[in-house]
Amino acid sequence: MLQLPTHEDVLAAAKRLLGQAHRTPVLRSATADRQLNAELFFKCENFQRMGAFKFRGAFNAISQFDERQRKAGVITFSSGNHAQAVALSARILGIPATILMPVDAPQAKIAATRGYGGEVILFDRYQQDREALGAQLAGERGLTLIPPYDHPHVMAGQGTAALELIQEVGPLDVLLVPCGGGGLLSGSALAVRALAPKCKLYGVEPEAGNDGQQSLRKGEIVHIATPNTIADGAQTQHLGRFTFEVIRRDVDDILTATDPQLIEAMKFFAERMKIVVEPTGCLGFAAACHAGLPLQGKRVGVILSGGNVDLARFAQLVAG
Amino acid sequence: MLQLPTHEDVLAAAKRLLGQAHRTPVLRSATADRQLNAELFFKCENFQRMGAFKFRGAFNAISQFDERQRKAGVITFSSGNHAQAVALSARILGIPATILMPVDAPQAKIAATRGYGGEVILFDRYQQDREALGAQLAGERGLTLIPPYDHPHVMAGQGTAALELIQEVGPLDVLLVPCGGGGLLSGSALAVRALAPKCKLYGVEPEAGNDGQQSLRKGEIVHIATPNTIADGAQTQHLGRFTFEVIRRDVDDILTATDPQLIEAMKFFAERMKIVVEPTGCLGFAAACHAGLPLQGKRVGVILSGGNVDLARFAQLVAG
Repeated sequence: MLQLPTHEDVLAAAKRLLGQAHRTPVLRSATADRQLNAELFFKCENFQRMGAFKFRGAFNAISQFDERQRKAGVITFSSGNHAQAVALSARILGIPATILMPVDAPQAKIAATRGYGGEVILFDRYQQDREALGAQLAGERGLTLIPPYDHPHVMAGQGTAALELIQEVGPLDVLLVPCGGGGLLSGSALAVRALAPKCKLYGVEPEAGNDGQQSLRKGEIVHIATPNTIADGAQTQHLGRFTFEVIRRDVDDILTATDPQLIEAMKFFAERMKIVVEPTGCLGFAAACHAGLPLQGKRVGVILSGGNVDLARFAQLVAG
Repeated sequence: MLQLPTHEDVLAAAKRLLGQAHRTPVLRSATADRQLNAELFFKCENFQRMGAFKFRGAFNAISQFDERQRKAGVITFSSGNHAQAVALSARILGIPATILMPVDAPQAKIAATRGYGGEVILFDRYQQDREALGAQLAGERGLTLIPPYDHPHVMAGQGTAALELIQEVGPLDVLLVPCGGGGLLSGSALAVRALAPKCKLYGVEPEAGNDGQQSLRKGEIVHIATPNTIADGAQTQHLGRFTFEVIRRDVDDILTATDPQLIEAMKFFAERMKIVVEPTGCLGFAAACHAGLPLQGKRVGVILSGGNVDLARFAQLVAG
């Protein structure tokens, strides 16, 4: 029996994050409201520290380390935003951080992670199993592993974004949340179910990687091959054990969005709202525009999960 | 003797704008703070309605029309953000708007102005004098002319951005403000001199169009040819009579920034702060980075005046 995190854990996380995470702004768009005939509230986690919501979960987890854990340090594996989130959180807390990253990860991400003071260990993702390697290093060095999503403290931390959104704008009729491994979605569920029980809660995955949707339908965690999508933050191959249990209990459905829909949303954000949102962060709005949900007259929350996209890549996507 | 607007006019404008203009967020950047060894506060007028601070001045001016003026309507000439600001303000207030735009203005801007309900009259800027044409139309139709910057009500409205900034973050040591015709700069001066008398206030112009700097040096309004710069919101040829009087009384100096410095700032905003800022809106931060001001340890306000840049153009500039 898994010990699932609760709404109280989200509230406790919010206290730990006070003065550490940004309380990100909620932006509105008269144009989006008119297009969808609804009231939209965009929670801008692209403005979060290190550029994505991931800081919330990583900091919440690492700040709960005991003395021995703090001294030995934290380890994680990630090629993306979680790597930077762990490195930054550990630096703030004065804890050594070891990050396993694939040798072919973007140089900018490796540099950013090192810039936050993390020790980066490169591995060959075609020859080495990152989870086994992480467990081995953790054992040898006495490090505590904080995985990218499947951890109650990480989930509770991620839930503080939805918590803030509802605290700021009041009850919502619908909330749309990007879904990769399900950390943000399950955390959001913990906040939403307590504060706005009637709110419809939807996860949104890239269409090419709809393992979460399949898992919900099948009633068990479905594994897929790494999907081919521009939403690099949602290229996970499966939900986690903890995240799946919360999602199947609390989430109304998982929807999908195509890459062209994500690009259209990214352009809308840049052109009309003047913000840079990474492809994964566009999942919620893309679904609001295209998934056929009945949103007319509704109050709709949309979590923009992050803004970390290489500038040349961004330019290429929005100029096309 | 010109009747110059005052701090009280800015406060009155703030009341008129309540619930009409967005109270735009102030963003911070740990990276910018570290780079400049200062505390920076970015007032995000790129998030203002129609994408730039111009809405503040236009709405403040047009909302003071009497019954006869409201019935006849407003007229202005502008190829840029002021055209959209007047069209939108007039629509909100239920007043007819006539906008003179050059026939070679970007189609997107003409379309946006029409989209806000303005009647666009195109003219040939090489054959026709827009001010004479505006005066003629105003006379024939009984329209009230609201020029882009040289008008006390417009200046007072623009001052509400700096007012909000100081209300939100407290006193500043330095404030950097983009300067074209001087509407935003003079309005900011009215707010700053009353609320933060010790604050150093600088206007920033494109280096290629430093007529304001020349005017300050010479003690009279200097006219220049239309400057060649990517900062299309600051391609004005001269300050206004009202704006110049306030600027020479209240502004410490006018600095300049080069186009490459503006592009560098635009990239920083997109990459690190996840926001789209038009070239003119980058003037303040470019000067903070390159003008050699002693900012160490100071609290520095920077007004990002707008975010209206064609997406393909933006992509081209930041990808280069």
